[in-house]
Amino acid sequence: MLRLNFEKLGGLVPAIAQDYQTGEILMLAFMNEAAWRTTLTTGRATYYSRSRKSLWTKGETSGHVQRVHEIRIDCDDDTVVLKVEQVGGAACHTGHRSCFHKKVEEGAVHIVGEPVFDPKEVYRK
Amino acid sequence: MLRLNFEKLGGLVPAIAQDYQTGEILMLAFMNEAAWRTTLTTGRATYYSRSRKSLWTKGETSGHVQRVHEIRIDCDDDTVVLKVEQVGGAACHTGHRSCFHKKVEEGAVHIVGEPVFDPKEVYRK
Repeated sequence: MLRLNFEKLGGLVPAIAQDYQTGEILMLAFMNEAAWRTTLTTGRATYYSRSRKSLWTKGETSGHVQRVHEIRIDCDDDTVVLKVEQVGGAACHTGHRSCFHKKVEEGAVHIVGEPVFDPKEVYRK
Repeated sequence: MLRLNFEKLGGLVPAIAQDYQTGEILMLAFMNEAAWRTTLTTGRATYYSRSRKSLWTKGETSGHVQRVHEIRIDCDDDTVVLKVEQVGGAACHTGHRSCFHKKVEEGAVHIVGEPVFDPKEVYRK
């Protein structure tokens, strides 16, 4: 019953992380079956990095993990919504709370809001 | 500046439709460049149907169009969020308000909420 349809997208499903309290959409990433199973088992959002070709537990570098409070799947079992608590306050590597901080208006892009952390501090070696 | 990165996903980007008032995530579909341009031009959510291999203006069959109130793109320009007004009250072909009406809990799926319309009535010939 919990089998997702990974076939439509070459072994992946899109996964949306949404703030569990405010409903703000924080980011979208992809899961393969191992990432999905790991998320279910650990309660920490785990994705599949297409660039690194490996599992990626969100926050493994920054400490800014996503605690999963609720999981939804869609009508045809090929997309996931995670309602998460974003530790550290920001999901985006730019330091913005949401990756979707670029608003399209009258043919131009406007940045909405301010970063909540300095990425140079969080991701420094 | 409004060019999206369609290359990572073979000519497509994921597009999330979110209720512009409540923040509820209604559905996820894909856009090719023509769908993106059409959405920008018309203010009606238009996707690309992978099964039919054609542009798909949401609501073209049911009348339940999505009026776009705000558009966001993500940090790396490969995902879209549309904040929409869902005409007819439901985005899902099942009659549920959201496609994400399946909640995963303790290894099982539970349906959340009731359909707001009867799909047999809306999609009848």
